[in-house]
Amino acid sequence: MDLYIGLLGCGTVGAGVVSLVRRRAGKVADMTGSRPVVKTILVRDTTKDRGVPFEHERLTTNPDDVLHDDAIQVVVETIGGIEPAKTYILEALKRKKHVVTANKDLIAVHGPEILRVAAENRVSVLFEAAVGGAIPLVGPLKENLTANEVTDLKGIINGTTNFILSEMTARHIDFEEALAMAQELGYAEADPSSDVDGLDAARKLVILSSIGFQTQVHLSDVRVEGIRHITATDVRYADELGYVIKLLAVGRDRGGELTLAVRPTLIPKVHPLAHVSDAYNALYVRGDAAGDLMFFGRGAGRMPTASAVVGDIISLIRNLKLGYVVSSPNGGAATTKPVVDREDERYKYYFRLLAQDQPGVFASIAQLFGENHASMETVLQKRVRGSCAEIVIVTHDISSSKARRMIADLKALEHLHAVECVMPVEPVAE
Amino acid sequence: MDLYIGLLGCGTVGAGVVSLVRRRAGKVADMTGSRPVVKTILVRDTTKDRGVPFEHERLTTNPDDVLHDDAIQVVVETIGGIEPAKTYILEALKRKKHVVTANKDLIAVHGPEILRVAAENRVSVLFEAAVGGAIPLVGPLKENLTANEVTDLKGIINGTTNFILSEMTARHIDFEEALAMAQELGYAEADPSSDVDGLDAARKLVILSSIGFQTQVHLSDVRVEGIRHITATDVRYADELGYVIKLLAVGRDRGGELTLAVRPTLIPKVHPLAHVSDAYNALYVRGDAAGDLMFFGRGAGRMPTASAVVGDIISLIRNLKLGYVVSSPNGGAATTKPVVDREDERYKYYFRLLAQDQPGVFASIAQLFGENHASMETVLQKRVRGSCAEIVIVTHDISSSKARRMIADLKALEHLHAVECVMPVEPVAE
Repeated sequence: MDLYIGLLGCGTVGAGVVSLVRRRAGKVADMTGSRPVVKTILVRDTTKDRGVPFEHERLTTNPDDVLHDDAIQVVVETIGGIEPAKTYILEALKRKKHVVTANKDLIAVHGPEILRVAAENRVSVLFEAAVGGAIPLVGPLKENLTANEVTDLKGIINGTTNFILSEMTARHIDFEEALAMAQELGYAEADPSSDVDGLDAARKLVILSSIGFQTQVHLSDVRVEGIRHITATDVRYADELGYVIKLLAVGRDRGGELTLAVRPTLIPKVHPLAHVSDAYNALYVRGDAAGDLMFFGRGAGRMPTASAVVGDIISLIRNLKLGYVVSSPNGGAATTKPVVDREDERYKYYFRLLAQDQPGVFASIAQLFGENHASMETVLQKRVRGSCAEIVIVTHDISSSKARRMIADLKALEHLHAVECVMPVEPVAE
Repeated sequence: MDLYIGLLGCGTVGAGVVSLVRRRAGKVADMTGSRPVVKTILVRDTTKDRGVPFEHERLTTNPDDVLHDDAIQVVVETIGGIEPAKTYILEALKRKKHVVTANKDLIAVHGPEILRVAAENRVSVLFEAAVGGAIPLVGPLKENLTANEVTDLKGIINGTTNFILSEMTARHIDFEEALAMAQELGYAEADPSSDVDGLDAARKLVILSSIGFQTQVHLSDVRVEGIRHITATDVRYADELGYVIKLLAVGRDRGGELTLAVRPTLIPKVHPLAHVSDAYNALYVRGDAAGDLMFFGRGAGRMPTASAVVGDIISLIRNLKLGYVVSSPNGGAATTKPVVDREDERYKYYFRLLAQDQPGVFASIAQLFGENHASMETVLQKRVRGSCAEIVIVTHDISSSKARRMIADLKALEHLHAVECVMPVEPVAE
């Protein structure tokens, strides 16, 4: 028996789905009794070359050819972005079609509404591909780790910024040059802001936190900082001090209070996350029973993302056969947990300051650190650009609120030109 | 509504299950509408202190109090070993009880029979805890990665040997001393053979390979080598050459032909597996679409194993509610794949030889390597014990069949006392 799939969008991921469904159709038919067939594909231009030869698949520019076709049981959305993807998905659900999507923007922002409509219509929405590409994250959090109170999620979940930071480190180049390379290789988009400003990672953190912490968090709950202000100088100092810089997404649940942040962070070179380079992603999960777990793999790309999408399609086919509808992502738990900016989170902090190179300036900086009880672990001072001195300080553990207060105080200091860069330092893994 | 669980065995893992079920019962009831309750526990001695206070749970020495109690829907087996666990599990299945087990010995050897009886009785057998402790491995391979042809499984899946090898490396001690430490800390059993001879890892590899390669492999298909013959000397040479020694489990599917092995292996210090120390486990999975994935976490211990067992219990409760029975571990695929000892697998090889320290001996060894076209990458020679010389050679890539042939040839050489240790060298990860 054939199971018909309608595909919305046929870009990089969509074309991967077409070829992978075709490659696995026989095996899936052996396993489940149903052969998945992509019947109709919605595209903007039916004449464009998409790198896969189309066979019996019908290309159309009319969404109704997918959404109003009663023979289509599963709709796969790979358009991305909010509209028209959201309208199409809601329409598909109302017409009792199951939906598989790789759309993190949509699930992060409109996930609750989409899951509610799915539940009302007794159909499933699966979105393993929306977070971490090929890496199983949604499944393990939703299924295998449910016996745990998940207390920590921490990882590198944006491949574009990780590629840029890896290139900056390996080639000693500045952000702009690394970004241009990423764009040339297709790892970054023409408008890279969603990636480099941390929004993409924040969206994935929202999805992971909602599932892991069994609540509903919102994009506005995440404190987001991107990597545009990271310079080759910071990368070099980090290296000198035994660190690499990574854009880290961090979610914490402390007694029901959440803290959510995406921010560039100094990672000790001996930490496993320091070795996650290029387009790879990695996520640490800490559960009260399981302890620390780590998941690692390709976070994006045609076939890795298609792997997750087609994995979801196969799960759906199995479930359909058994009359099983997948529950909402937070397991039906309707709890809400407050999101707080924890004042008492303690980290070492890296400060890079630009000051006038004259007697007394360093003393006034040191005094300010002393007054704040921020003892210094490392201090580097280098003369740069004529009469300027670059001062790098790594503190011992201080609270995040104190770090913010010190930035304000430093900016008010006479003869200090700029607080160029401040980043927390991740402790060495236990 | 209460869902009654019968527990067979209440050792380390069983006691963890009792306390974790109790800790999560309210949350599971919120999520699923059913509150899991451990009703009856089969033990050998009802008076023994098990580190958890029992409340309403009834302790019994009569298995029928669990197996013949119609109120019990789920039986959790944590006895371990083949008998009486197998008899109890089959009896439970025939009485239409679902089974959750952490018993790798049983699943590796009698998995097909147990799954057949479960299918005949329309009940489920889940065993996430049997491999990798808290790490979700069975779930991702059975669910998320089904769109892939899995070609490679590779990892550290025995915590005891990993602890022993980690201690040998960190403390420069010999196998026996490290084993005694492991036994003292409860990481190794009084009879440690199942762990240190590689059998435990082989059993887990059988389970993972059956699922990942979608076939049925047998314990006798695995070429197994333990770590008893690894000495502090080998650990020191490995360190000097830039490697650490790990007991590696490797499964490969090359066009439907499988190769399965458990063996001590030199891992480059820059390889992520080199940093998996103590009781941690890590598994690499390569899929044709997903690329390389890695899963890491605690492979054993009370709460990590209980995390996986209770995760399976919660999955069962959800599925029960939806009338869903979990399919067999290889997804219903009845394919069989031949297991071959691939002659053409190529690795660098580490040889440690003990020879008479006299002119011409090294020349005859070098000649033997030359005749086998096994070019040498590194050679170390040290005088030891009076008139003996220790010779360590790391070759460039040679086939495994050639390595075996060379061992036989070396043993026949005059003035060569012993081929002390031969291990393959894992290439640097891409």
